[in-house]
Amino acid sequence: MNSHYEYDVVVIGAGHAGTEAALAAARMGARTALLTMNCDTVGQMSCNPAIGGVAKGQIVREIDALGGEMGRVIDETGIQFRMLNSGKGPAMHSPRAQADKKAYQFAVKHRVELQENLTLRQEMVEEILAEPDPQGETHSEDGSPAPRMRITGVRVRGDAIYRCRAIVVTTGTFLQAIMHTGEAKAAGGRAGEGTTGTLSDSFRKLGFTLERFKTGTPARLNGRTIDHSVLKEQPGDENPVPFSFLTERITQPQISCWLTETNADVHELIRENLHRAPMYSGQIDSTGPRYCPSIEDKIVRFAERDSHQIFLEPEGRNTLEYYCNGISTSLPRDVQDRMIHSIRGLENAEIMRYGYAVEYDFAPPTQLFPTLETKRVGGLYFAGQINGTTGYEEAAGQGLLAGANAALSLQEAEPLILDRSQAYLGVLIDDLVTKGVDEPYRMFTSRAEYRMLLRHDNADRRLTPLGHRVGLVTADRWERHERYEGEIQRALSLLQSRRHEGNTLEEWLRRPEIGWDDLCGFSADVAALEVPDRVRQQVTVEVKYAGYIRRQQVEIERQEKVQSVPIPTTFDFHAIPQLRVEAREKFSRVRPANLGQAGRISGITPADLAVLMLYLKEPRRMAT
Amino acid sequence: MNSHYEYDVVVIGAGHAGTEAALAAARMGARTALLTMNCDTVGQMSCNPAIGGVAKGQIVREIDALGGEMGRVIDETGIQFRMLNSGKGPAMHSPRAQADKKAYQFAVKHRVELQENLTLRQEMVEEILAEPDPQGETHSEDGSPAPRMRITGVRVRGDAIYRCRAIVVTTGTFLQAIMHTGEAKAAGGRAGEGTTGTLSDSFRKLGFTLERFKTGTPARLNGRTIDHSVLKEQPGDENPVPFSFLTERITQPQISCWLTETNADVHELIRENLHRAPMYSGQIDSTGPRYCPSIEDKIVRFAERDSHQIFLEPEGRNTLEYYCNGISTSLPRDVQDRMIHSIRGLENAEIMRYGYAVEYDFAPPTQLFPTLETKRVGGLYFAGQINGTTGYEEAAGQGLLAGANAALSLQEAEPLILDRSQAYLGVLIDDLVTKGVDEPYRMFTSRAEYRMLLRHDNADRRLTPLGHRVGLVTADRWERHERYEGEIQRALSLLQSRRHEGNTLEEWLRRPEIGWDDLCGFSADVAALEVPDRVRQQVTVEVKYAGYIRRQQVEIERQEKVQSVPIPTTFDFHAIPQLRVEAREKFSRVRPANLGQAGRISGITPADLAVLMLYLKEPRRMAT
Ligand SMILES: Cc1cc2nc3c(=O)[nH]c(=O)nc-3n(C[C@H](O)[C@H](O)[C@H](O)COP(=O)(O)OP(=O)(O)OC[C@H]3O[C@@H](n4cnc5c(N)ncnc54)[C@H](O)[C@@H]3O)c2cc1C
Ligand SMILES: Cc1cc2nc3c(=O)[nH]c(=O)nc-3n(C[C@H](O)[C@H](O)[C@H](O)COP(=O)(O)OP(=O)(O)OC[C@H]3O[C@@H](n4cnc5c(N)ncnc54)[C@H](O)[C@@H]3O)c2cc1C
Repeated sequence: MNSHYEYDVVVIGAGHAGTEAALAAARMGARTALLTMNCDTVGQMSCNPAIGGVAKGQIVREIDALGGEMGRVIDETGIQFRMLNSGKGPAMHSPRAQADKKAYQFAVKHRVELQENLTLRQEMVEEILAEPDPQGETHSEDGSPAPRMRITGVRVRGDAIYRCRAIVVTTGTFLQAIMHTGEAKAAGGRAGEGTTGTLSDSFRKLGFTLERFKTGTPARLNGRTIDHSVLKEQPGDENPVPFSFLTERITQPQISCWLTETNADVHELIRENLHRAPMYSGQIDSTGPRYCPSIEDKIVRFAERDSHQIFLEPEGRNTLEYYCNGISTSLPRDVQDRMIHSIRGLENAEIMRYGYAVEYDFAPPTQLFPTLETKRVGGLYFAGQINGTTGYEEAAGQGLLAGANAALSLQEAEPLILDRSQAYLGVLIDDLVTKGVDEPYRMFTSRAEYRMLLRHDNADRRLTPLGHRVGLVTADRWERHERYEGEIQRALSLLQSRRHEGNTLEEWLRRPEIGWDDLCGFSADVAALEVPDRVRQQVTVEVKYAGYIRRQQVEIERQEKVQSVPIPTTFDFHAIPQLRVEAREKFSRVRPANLGQAGRISGITPADLAVLMLYLKEPRRMAT
Repeated sequence: MNSHYEYDVVVIGAGHAGTEAALAAARMGARTALLTMNCDTVGQMSCNPAIGGVAKGQIVREIDALGGEMGRVIDETGIQFRMLNSGKGPAMHSPRAQADKKAYQFAVKHRVELQENLTLRQEMVEEILAEPDPQGETHSEDGSPAPRMRITGVRVRGDAIYRCRAIVVTTGTFLQAIMHTGEAKAAGGRAGEGTTGTLSDSFRKLGFTLERFKTGTPARLNGRTIDHSVLKEQPGDENPVPFSFLTERITQPQISCWLTETNADVHELIRENLHRAPMYSGQIDSTGPRYCPSIEDKIVRFAERDSHQIFLEPEGRNTLEYYCNGISTSLPRDVQDRMIHSIRGLENAEIMRYGYAVEYDFAPPTQLFPTLETKRVGGLYFAGQINGTTGYEEAAGQGLLAGANAALSLQEAEPLILDRSQAYLGVLIDDLVTKGVDEPYRMFTSRAEYRMLLRHDNADRRLTPLGHRVGLVTADRWERHERYEGEIQRALSLLQSRRHEGNTLEEWLRRPEIGWDDLCGFSADVAALEVPDRVRQQVTVEVKYAGYIRRQQVEIERQEKVQSVPIPTTFDFHAIPQLRVEAREKFSRVRPANLGQAGRISGITPADLAVLMLYLKEPRRMAT
């Protein structure tokens, strides 16, 4: 007799994507099971013990605005907070924090345990169960119609079955994973853990294309053996800014990171041993993240440089383990030993864990709708590293949206799809499903067209109302949010109604040299205004950059008119003779939802678009 | 090119045995490497989140007295402290504490990281390297002389080599481990982790006998889904007593455990499904711990009982996960679900991890000398669950002694062998190497002949001087210990020199109804004596029980005279024609070091001993 369980939504894998997915679905009322290989690794950081950074910090703020946990957990367990780019304009300000890695992951687990409607359970998922969907239709690679499947559940090790109506797959780097350190290989998605081969087979059987990527991680050192006296200290910010709208203040003491760098000897050593690096020996031939390169990649690609920075980051408050940010590597261990010992401050440093690269299967994300549901199998969602992305924040954001969309689909409600002008998460998912990936995808501010709008400081204002509408946001957050909006309006009206030397205070504030404090000198009412600091800051940014912001909004409206022209899901691109063969194939594969998405497909020319637009307006022209 | 490392001592596995072994060796000056599969599971509790208990609490105190870490770590990370049997005599008082499981393990790791001379490193050890020892000689199973080997190092995954002069193996339940939940099986020594097959092969090649044992663990529940209102609360002690001599006071707040019990329905359900339990279906045929039986074993063996107690123990402060102490099981998951839901308070409880049994290889410990060095291979020590024991405390104690003996042997110093009258650890190791095990061995007070001497309260006095002599004890601890002994002597002399109504205060204190407070009334000097509480308590126990203690000491001395007669390591038992064949074989296999050990071998009669004694006194009689 097999065990059977019944849930609305099953989430596979409790990493960064899986935990946000499961929490989102459960919050929205779906009875959710979060199944993961090992309950002790829920929310574990595979690599660097840090959250946020440029563009990633903005994503964390967006996750928070939509009711997710990442921001609150890092606020609670962070050991060092810094606002990056604080010298630049507000669109570039990016919060980042070092985490107490173990405290972080156990805080995530605790929040999962606390969530109503959510069952966290240690299980090894082996197979996706699906049946043909009589109503469903999809398209094969060549664009021809194909029958669509629908999930019915999952089978776990021990032959138990979870029946459900939606599945979110967030298995990270664990699909057919192989770890490499020099010539040595071992199966596993993370050192000391296992891999999951059978799930890849299950995806292939369902007709999915899988490809291989690789990523890597540096050695970890015992801080007792690091000579801090010759390193440069990097303290946290004096006034740390929280990630979450719900965190009033960061009160825990902060810990420093330490800086050192590679040198000519290190580079020489690596060059001499390049033939032993799996990426160069041919042992790995999948693609790694261009923007998070291994040290051997850096030496090759930036041959002119004779030094690269290394940040030594403590992994927690109660451990001496240090993460070596900047020298991710899969060189053999003897080279790693010599490399570490050739670096200033690390002459006697002991390696606790060696660096390694991991190769894994991912599912090219053009196989997804913008809801993150797969085109091929109804009710099946993919989120996180399985979609070819890299990074905790990118994973968590996708997880949240996939979980929410799974729950919305069960409610037969409108899906939650963010626009590129609404959120970095909108950019992320649109990039994935439209352009696909040819290397592990991470977020950059440069990927966003409207980054003046997608600031970390206005994430709540952009997204909390949306989160509220779909039920992702707690009553408490919503109430606070409304109060906050009210205060902003009150402050703004005050500035608009008070004058100084003939101009309104709003006009005064636009001037670069004028700050809020000056306004207080101009008006007793402003000085007397009792609002939290972040309200003052928000109003200041909005007023100062109003010009840019308005220009971006106009641009969005202009684009929208053209781009929002919808493309019917049954639209037959092959029936347009004037379309280039390549364009026909790409359109058929991606199946863009509207003209905007069609235009962002890589390789599509303005001429292709013009043809397509013509046929969309006059479908009679179609060949069929 | 392979990587090579050079150490004095290599410890394999960073569980409870391995961490104490490595810390002990490093403290004694040996350059030590602690190699373990996953640095995140250092010091992890595989099963119940608790340290101590009857006889086990005494062992923790002994480990502490010898400079080990277990006591200090549980003092720091305990969430509930209780002195068991506090209503009985002092020999039965046994400290026990619930741990914050994750805080416990990371505190152990931190202490390992802090230790000079000690390298903690994530490695999968695959092979023991050894060569014939030209000077060495040992005996095969049949007692005939055999060449002895000597270790040279270990080989780890990735073909790196650690060369060393001594190895301590502490691989716990991970050798060729198989986990069972009902009909379902999976390889692994602990759910979510791997197994190590190749090491078993390596031991077999070196000529070791391996046998199989099994142990099990219950389901873990999400406390959010437990109905605490119908459970009985079990709070901690009001005045928690620390484990470590170095801990002044336990100051952290305590958390309650909760009590419920099985019932007739549960028992009926289990009986109906017994044929699906791996132990009863024949799927497992190795022996499990008689004293830590699974719930299915209890139902079978205590068929008359219709209820068994269950302690619901929180796994930490920042988690809702609960351990169900008392219902360890490997029944199939559908039975586990129904069983849990039939228990009061657990009607709606959600299982986070299912219970399972694990079968693993152990090395019968008669293959060891009392130093825990193997007879067959010089420089190779075994400690912990690999020796057929069960329990964190038993493992940690063996680890400490094996690590110390490895270091002592490199110094060519006298080994550290504790007598049965000195410590529970002496009893433990003597039992193992002399009698072997036919079921997983755990400590009981009843195993000790002199339990009036082996109290938890005098562990420091029994063992810290020994630990100091061999270099296990820090200067700080030794100084505090000497101060403590001085205070005890001062207090005792005072009681001996002051009189009340003709009798010394010492005589008064012997009376059952008289306590220290009464003495304060008899003598202003006693009242004015400024010594810590534990000094007063120690003096009180020593004085009150002086009669019993003296009697046990006399008995020890009497026994010692007979038993300490040494047996040369080259002694040829087969050359004694009068000895029964069975006795000859057993002596040859165990190779007791003295007459006392010879007499404790199971199956040896007083007559066998008498014959042996005769030949020991007059070796001329020997047949050769
Ligand atoms: C070695 C390494 C180096 C990395 N380096 C970087 C870096 O430098 N920069 C960067 O931004 N990102 C890096 N990453 C990526 C980052 O860790 C991921 O992007 C992020 O963790 C992805 O989150 P996720 O939720 O998709 O997957 P993960 O966090 O990997 O979580 C996957 C979860 O799924 C579970 N799981 C898998 N299969 C099953 C199954 N069959 N059944 C049940 N549970 C299953 C796993 O146990 C795990 O809990 C690295 C990752 C690794 C492994
Ligand atoms: C399922 C289960 C249930 C149990 N139930 C009970 C119980 O009810 N009561 C009780 O008293 N005890 C119980 N125990 C036993 C208790 O956990 C052990 O007695 C104790 O942990 C043994 O300590 P150890 O140090 O010998 O081994 P462990 O704590 O198991 O540590 C072994 C270490 O060795 C490492 N290792 C193994 N192989 C290799 C290798 N080849 N290379 C590198 N590292 C390696 C592992 O990663 C691990 O860190 C149970 C154990 C298990 C697994």
